[in-house]
Amino acid sequence: MYDVVAFGEGLVRLSPAHFQRLEQAGRVDLHIGGAELNVAVGVSRLGLRTAWVSKLPDNPLGRMIRNKAREQGVVTDHICWSEEGRAGLYFLELGATPRPTSVTYDRTGSAFCSLKPGEIDWETILGTAKCLHLTGITPAVSTSAAEATFEALEAARAQSCKVSLDLNYRAKLWDPESAGRTLGAMMPYVDILITTAGDTRTILGLTAADDAELAGVLAERYPCEVVAVTHREGASVWKCRWSGLVRAKGQTVTSKVYEVDIVDQVGRGDAFAAGFLAGYLPAEDIARGLDVGIAFSALKHSMPGDINWCDQRDVDALLAGPAPGVSR
Amino acid sequence: MYDVVAFGEGLVRLSPAHFQRLEQAGRVDLHIGGAELNVAVGVSRLGLRTAWVSKLPDNPLGRMIRNKAREQGVVTDHICWSEEGRAGLYFLELGATPRPTSVTYDRTGSAFCSLKPGEIDWETILGTAKCLHLTGITPAVSTSAAEATFEALEAARAQSCKVSLDLNYRAKLWDPESAGRTLGAMMPYVDILITTAGDTRTILGLTAADDAELAGVLAERYPCEVVAVTHREGASVWKCRWSGLVRAKGQTVTSKVYEVDIVDQVGRGDAFAAGFLAGYLPAEDIARGLDVGIAFSALKHSMPGDINWCDQRDVDALLAGPAPGVSR
Amino acid sequence: MYDVVAFGEGLVRLSPAHFQRLEQAGRVDLHIGGAELNVAVGVSRLGLRTAWVSKLPDNPLGRMIRNKAREQGVVTDHICWSEEGRAGLYFLELGATPRPTSVTYDRTGSAFCSLKPGEIDWETILGTAKCLHLTGITPAVSTSAAEATFEALEAARAQSCKVSLDLNYRAKLWDPESAGRTLGAMMPYVDILITTAGDTRTILGLTAADDAELAGVLAERYPCEVVAVTHREGASVWKCRWSGLVRAKGQTVTSKVYEVDIVDQVGRGDAFAAGFLAGYLPAEDIARGLDVGIAFSALKHSMPGDINWCDQRDVDALLAGPAPGVSR
Amino acid sequence: MYDVVAFGEGLVRLSPAHFQRLEQAGRVDLHIGGAELNVAVGVSRLGLRTAWVSKLPDNPLGRMIRNKAREQGVVTDHICWSEEGRAGLYFLELGATPRPTSVTYDRTGSAFCSLKPGEIDWETILGTAKCLHLTGITPAVSTSAAEATFEALEAARAQSCKVSLDLNYRAKLWDPESAGRTLGAMMPYVDILITTAGDTRTILGLTAADDAELAGVLAERYPCEVVAVTHREGASVWKCRWSGLVRAKGQTVTSKVYEVDIVDQVGRGDAFAAGFLAGYLPAEDIARGLDVGIAFSALKHSMPGDINWCDQRDVDALLAGPAPGVSR
Amino acid sequence: MYDVVAFGEGLVRLSPAHFQRLEQAGRVDLHIGGAELNVAVGVSRLGLRTAWVSKLPDNPLGRMIRNKAREQGVVTDHICWSEEGRAGLYFLELGATPRPTSVTYDRTGSAFCSLKPGEIDWETILGTAKCLHLTGITPAVSTSAAEATFEALEAARAQSCKVSLDLNYRAKLWDPESAGRTLGAMMPYVDILITTAGDTRTILGLTAADDAELAGVLAERYPCEVVAVTHREGASVWKCRWSGLVRAKGQTVTSKVYEVDIVDQVGRGDAFAAGFLAGYLPAEDIARGLDVGIAFSALKHSMPGDINWCDQRDVDALLAGPAPGVSR
Amino acid sequence: MYDVVAFGEGLVRLSPAHFQRLEQAGRVDLHIGGAELNVAVGVSRLGLRTAWVSKLPDNPLGRMIRNKAREQGVVTDHICWSEEGRAGLYFLELGATPRPTSVTYDRTGSAFCSLKPGEIDWETILGTAKCLHLTGITPAVSTSAAEATFEALEAARAQSCKVSLDLNYRAKLWDPESAGRTLGAMMPYVDILITTAGDTRTILGLTAADDAELAGVLAERYPCEVVAVTHREGASVWKCRWSGLVRAKGQTVTSKVYEVDIVDQVGRGDAFAAGFLAGYLPAEDIARGLDVGIAFSALKHSMPGDINWCDQRDVDALLAGPAPGVSR
Repeated sequence: MYDVVAFGEGLVRLSPAHFQRLEQAGRVDLHIGGAELNVAVGVSRLGLRTAWVSKLPDNPLGRMIRNKAREQGVVTDHICWSEEGRAGLYFLELGATPRPTSVTYDRTGSAFCSLKPGEIDWETILGTAKCLHLTGITPAVSTSAAEATFEALEAARAQSCKVSLDLNYRAKLWDPESAGRTLGAMMPYVDILITTAGDTRTILGLTAADDAELAGVLAERYPCEVVAVTHREGASVWKCRWSGLVRAKGQTVTSKVYEVDIVDQVGRGDAFAAGFLAGYLPAEDIARGLDVGIAFSALKHSMPGDINWCDQRDVDALLAGPAPGVSR
Repeated sequence: MYDVVAFGEGLVRLSPAHFQRLEQAGRVDLHIGGAELNVAVGVSRLGLRTAWVSKLPDNPLGRMIRNKAREQGVVTDHICWSEEGRAGLYFLELGATPRPTSVTYDRTGSAFCSLKPGEIDWETILGTAKCLHLTGITPAVSTSAAEATFEALEAARAQSCKVSLDLNYRAKLWDPESAGRTLGAMMPYVDILITTAGDTRTILGLTAADDAELAGVLAERYPCEVVAVTHREGASVWKCRWSGLVRAKGQTVTSKVYEVDIVDQVGRGDAFAAGFLAGYLPAEDIARGLDVGIAFSALKHSMPGDINWCDQRDVDALLAGPAPGVSR
Repeated sequence: MYDVVAFGEGLVRLSPAHFQRLEQAGRVDLHIGGAELNVAVGVSRLGLRTAWVSKLPDNPLGRMIRNKAREQGVVTDHICWSEEGRAGLYFLELGATPRPTSVTYDRTGSAFCSLKPGEIDWETILGTAKCLHLTGITPAVSTSAAEATFEALEAARAQSCKVSLDLNYRAKLWDPESAGRTLGAMMPYVDILITTAGDTRTILGLTAADDAELAGVLAERYPCEVVAVTHREGASVWKCRWSGLVRAKGQTVTSKVYEVDIVDQVGRGDAFAAGFLAGYLPAEDIARGLDVGIAFSALKHSMPGDINWCDQRDVDALLAGPAPGVSR
Repeated sequence: MYDVVAFGEGLVRLSPAHFQRLEQAGRVDLHIGGAELNVAVGVSRLGLRTAWVSKLPDNPLGRMIRNKAREQGVVTDHICWSEEGRAGLYFLELGATPRPTSVTYDRTGSAFCSLKPGEIDWETILGTAKCLHLTGITPAVSTSAAEATFEALEAARAQSCKVSLDLNYRAKLWDPESAGRTLGAMMPYVDILITTAGDTRTILGLTAADDAELAGVLAERYPCEVVAVTHREGASVWKCRWSGLVRAKGQTVTSKVYEVDIVDQVGRGDAFAAGFLAGYLPAEDIARGLDVGIAFSALKHSMPGDINWCDQRDVDALLAGPAPGVSR
Repeated sequence: MYDVVAFGEGLVRLSPAHFQRLEQAGRVDLHIGGAELNVAVGVSRLGLRTAWVSKLPDNPLGRMIRNKAREQGVVTDHICWSEEGRAGLYFLELGATPRPTSVTYDRTGSAFCSLKPGEIDWETILGTAKCLHLTGITPAVSTSAAEATFEALEAARAQSCKVSLDLNYRAKLWDPESAGRTLGAMMPYVDILITTAGDTRTILGLTAADDAELAGVLAERYPCEVVAVTHREGASVWKCRWSGLVRAKGQTVTSKVYEVDIVDQVGRGDAFAAGFLAGYLPAEDIARGLDVGIAFSALKHSMPGDINWCDQRDVDALLAGPAPGVSR
Repeated sequence: MYDVVAFGEGLVRLSPAHFQRLEQAGRVDLHIGGAELNVAVGVSRLGLRTAWVSKLPDNPLGRMIRNKAREQGVVTDHICWSEEGRAGLYFLELGATPRPTSVTYDRTGSAFCSLKPGEIDWETILGTAKCLHLTGITPAVSTSAAEATFEALEAARAQSCKVSLDLNYRAKLWDPESAGRTLGAMMPYVDILITTAGDTRTILGLTAADDAELAGVLAERYPCEVVAVTHREGASVWKCRWSGLVRAKGQTVTSKVYEVDIVDQVGRGDAFAAGFLAGYLPAEDIARGLDVGIAFSALKHSMPGDINWCDQRDVDALLAGPAPGVSR
């Protein structure tokens, strides 16, 4: 029934406008975020049937997160509602060179941290699903969430549902060693691996001359059918060059390189994952997955919030050729 | 050195504008709050030397709370800074009849909750202070905070520093029985008791025919030099009648009754405490304390945020007579 | 599968903040609205399975309307998407006595106006539905929409699906005579009639000594199982007394009268319809329907936008007794 | 060529939103104001040919004031532009009972203060004008502005142009004695006197049992053809009862009394003057002048800023009968 | 009496702030726009006597458009007011590379579309005017508007009033063939032609090696006294290089090239037309026209909205030499 | 007791958001500013004990300035409060290439302008201070302020307190000749000179082949222990290269060059002064002073307002190496 099922924590993001620092802010904008939720939203906007599985507190913030997933067409029927625990938050300060964009997590004690094996009916959810999407963040938030992640992996294997994993290292949640141990144990379950050179080095301890070689090393070492690597170039907070490559069936496909203006880069990796899955899953077309993934994530940089409000029309226009300054 | 030392948790308040509910809000205004902090700010704005003692996380939110206390002239040198724990938050939805204004606390796991005896140098702080102000909230947030409260009470007694207590029952933090046990044990230390009929009934189990009689009962049962009771009348969220009375030395003084338009009623009780202390402490003048307390708290209703941005000028103008529609 | 299916146009509402007039506004807030959509949202928030059937242009505004219905859990799978036509808009200026709140419609040429019989698969949609909700607005927007309305009525009759109708006279869309002719022809299909004394007089030409008598006259003249009449009292734009009554099975039930502060009264009638349906449909309990309807619509006045962001919790709290000023 | 020529200072008004005090504000809304400018705008919105004569600094703020007068159809060709001096400002804090709305003037050193006789070509401007409108504020801002006012009065007399004067006492600009001396000297030139009981007492030292008697006393003592007195009743900052009366040709006409909700009362007196002039001047119809004046000024209370954005349509609707809650 | 008379539709522009997409926006900023109105405003700000001729609905939006033209000193006395039809709107999403800025027109059924020959008294308006400014948009909005355009052209010819035309192709209003047919028929009336290489190719089917050659081809084929071509270089949405050239009397003058940061590029072509006319018309000085045109339009990029809020001072400062970072 | 005492005027800054020009703005953001106040805030945020000495009007704007200095930990006990005079204001329009950021001062008649010798107890304030910080702005605002400046210089000399001076030429306050005469007379008192090539040429009439040579010339001609010169490179309003050098003890140290994105460059020179003093004063370490000064001022460009909300943590992170795009 679902093309993609994403599993992970949903957060409320609070960010002051116009490059203000939190200390000086009199108000903050509210967005929703969370890597897996961002992927679910992106996949849904690109037209696939998508569910997001999570655990939320039954309070206005929890309902806000659920509502805004629903707004995007994501199925939220499988969320566990909890009387205990809080909604995870994160505070974001958008930077300008040389001040980096800065994230202050406030997710301790969240309802999601208390999620444990047995709370989610994976058999039903994954029974007819094509792909389960996970990231390296969920097993980092708590021991029980890590256990629930493995429960999901087992269920996916049992149901012949593909597993997609974005490594997504979070230094504020754990250290490289713990990440490597846990995520290393997850790798045998992974069909589609999405990563960057940095995360691969930090978590798996692997390096290579370039991303293509790195994808080769990963493809060799782990039983993934696809390895995708995204690449950001440039030191400016407001501009970068954005591209990616995919390794599959012994071949490497390299994307176009986009020059992007950065309004808000948070969620670009998630947008890549969403675009890749939406492009790849229907016909297992690697090149299409890469094209859609990089185009969709290049577009993500251009709007505020974690969510990519573009859709297939925008991706197609971008893939069709150079954009004029104004479309009218 | 200090006229008033207030001790308690500082919070960041997040509230959507213009009567929006949280679920529908795209942004929230940031204010600082916390009952004792509100009192400290009020007392400082009314011209007394004031310190606020608390424990904050060393992050942007913790610093924001400290900064905004400092902005008001409150001394913040005695704050404990913590590498652990979060800043307490609360979400506020302003209501309109028949929808009540609603508070969602998000203070679990705050740095303040971890405060325990021995972390604050009460001897130095209270050595030359006239009055220590507490509320019934601090002992409710955690066991160690309750212990730290008793440590402060002992120090105040040792230093011959008066103790002021606002009972302030919070149903979302504890139940009446726990509150009664703990706050009952605090009563022998209290010189100035500030309460309402509702809190007195809930916490201490005492009722009376009216507020005057209640103050008499309290004055009899506990060794307080002053008992002050505030009174709100009317069922509208946007309007009320506001007044108070004080019982001291066997006599009861009753205040004027103000008709008030309610912009934001949060912190009105704290404004009363601040006004009463600022009016009473200099010359132990009960009537002056009551006048300033009720006028200052009536004015509080007229501006957004927990903090009362009025000062002695505004109080004097209000006490001097009816205000014109526009002062120009 | 659906408890309620609502059918009608969705609009984007544009309103300047803080009582500004449009001519002076530099920005406007965006909300979604439309009487039947408002009902669908309310019913969904109160926990029933709800679909909203409409026709929208396939552009950002059309998608915005769909998204925000989805955000509330309303099923939007049956919307017709159109390459032609615009999204209906309406501009709203909130007033203050003696200036009335003012609506400027801008819905001419909307995609919905072009809706005609045959475009919607009523058989499937209503096959397992309990109730179809309509208003007097849909047949007023265009001839083809009126025809489509009768198509829906016939389908409902064929599927033994109840029909609920809110008369909702709109002077800017048609005149009393046309309204009377068209809505009069709809009355034989109606099971649940929702109206006011004013609309009944304008459209059906019926008057009575009071609302109770009026409900009796309506119940006698038309084959409705239920007649509900809401009542607003008071000339202030910012305050009113709000109540209602229901006539069914020969009996009249009268609601409590609420004093309400008005933040935004638009959609209160729709909130009543939603509350009544949510309270009535599960067990055909008239009194419950009336209680929930009037409470839910009284609460509607307290928040900006057409949509009532309250839910069953808020209704239950209001029905349980007087609200305190602050709930914390 | 002009029906009304208004002469006086234009100001930029800076006011924080939502009842904030200036000390707590992070931003302020900008409006233009100034009693005579407000009258000019009102008269123009009500359809008369109107010029506003003033002196402004040739900087962005001066141009903003000119632009916004022009926006309303007011002719600004006779403004003196100055390389010296600043734009007058005023800061406004909107209050809520018991805190009054408060004005902090910042007009010292303005370009207008330096205006002196000889700078304005009154002969041309008033040559074909029906009425020159002045207030008691202009002669208060500087000695040279007072001299320029008398120059204008002489020119009006020479051109047989009526003079309208709103006494408008400003305690922050001068004292009652100076005001009485200067405005007393202006009275012989005045054809249409607009005032309140308070201003009349303060400036002219006259009191009476009620407004009707006061108008009689004024009409007797001074050679005015019309004396108009407005009246505000009620102590709330958010609500009042608003009415007026006019004495002319030995008769007194009394207006309807409006219950008004107050969004922003600043400029209500100016709105009355504008409405009275617009209603009275075309046919010297006293009752029409009073009706339009009181209705137009009652409406003024309902929107933010000094300017009344209503027009003849709104006045006619109000005069036609009770307004519904929503006009749609 | 007028230096420039501009004729065309006025629109209200609605755009979300900070690069948001419409679907995610909770509010939109309001501006006025329309190519010919933008030119009229620019010409007026640069000091020429300017009228704007149009047709508007007599509702708040129509009046808003008129007001804001008036705010800029543009004469609006010749606008036709209509009881029928709506105000044209357009929704704007500001982009960031690689997402283009996107316009969604909502102008169908506007009052202006119904404009037809005979509604405007061209003889009076153009009798003493120097130049009539048109664009290729007006004849695209409706057949009757195209006819009214030819009526204006004939009137200009009869009154010896120059005609200025900006080709301005709008793909969402018509196709190249229709545009070529209609605009081709207008070319014999045109004295001053303003275009870009792209519009020239699309509409007139003409191309050349570069802009200079293109201007030569145009000057040869059509009887224009002046051909001006603007040029944008660079693929970034946030930055471009901006320049232009003019061909007249057999000679080509080339402008300076400006590096510009783009806040909002909408209306830059209109700003060029305004600057060119303001620089050229007084003394028919080609070089001055080009300098002012390119400088004024370079400045346009730097502020939000269609309108260029700069004036001659800003142009002179820019022409005088390199701007410092801060002028103080 | 103080590490740094800064002396100068405090201003309220009013600036429209998002690159709007003042004429088009409907609201302005409020910040505090003033060169010496900015330095005091920066020094305090970097951990030194700091006082700011000034004169302010006793009104809401004066108190706002004081409050916001206090918010940052700056001691404000030595401010003179005045019943006369206004708060100095300045209006700021943020530009985009080729439109420069533009400042409109409105400080005439400020309370600070009336400051004269004898009003400040310099002996007490500087008795135990390490450094008095001045700029070339204070002596420019009025003759009496210039005299008060020399009084402060004499007091610093008497108390063996170092003097730091930032030349800071302001063309809108005086001309080069007056500036040269007054600031030239201050130079013999200066220990730490902070300047730019432009200001040095304008005020002191000195030029050199490059900044290093210029610092040498200055160090030779005047008895300063340190000469610091900052350098901005690039013509874009949104981007620059930022660096500096220091000459002391016959040696020149040159900083790293930072590429910076400019959100708001106002106050960058003040941020350099603050960073230099904070880095240099503790151990008279030139290189540390330069590193901290350039890093702290590079960071200043990244946030709105005159104040640098960074602290030592941000400086250390920047000095430690290249910043990632997002820190999380």
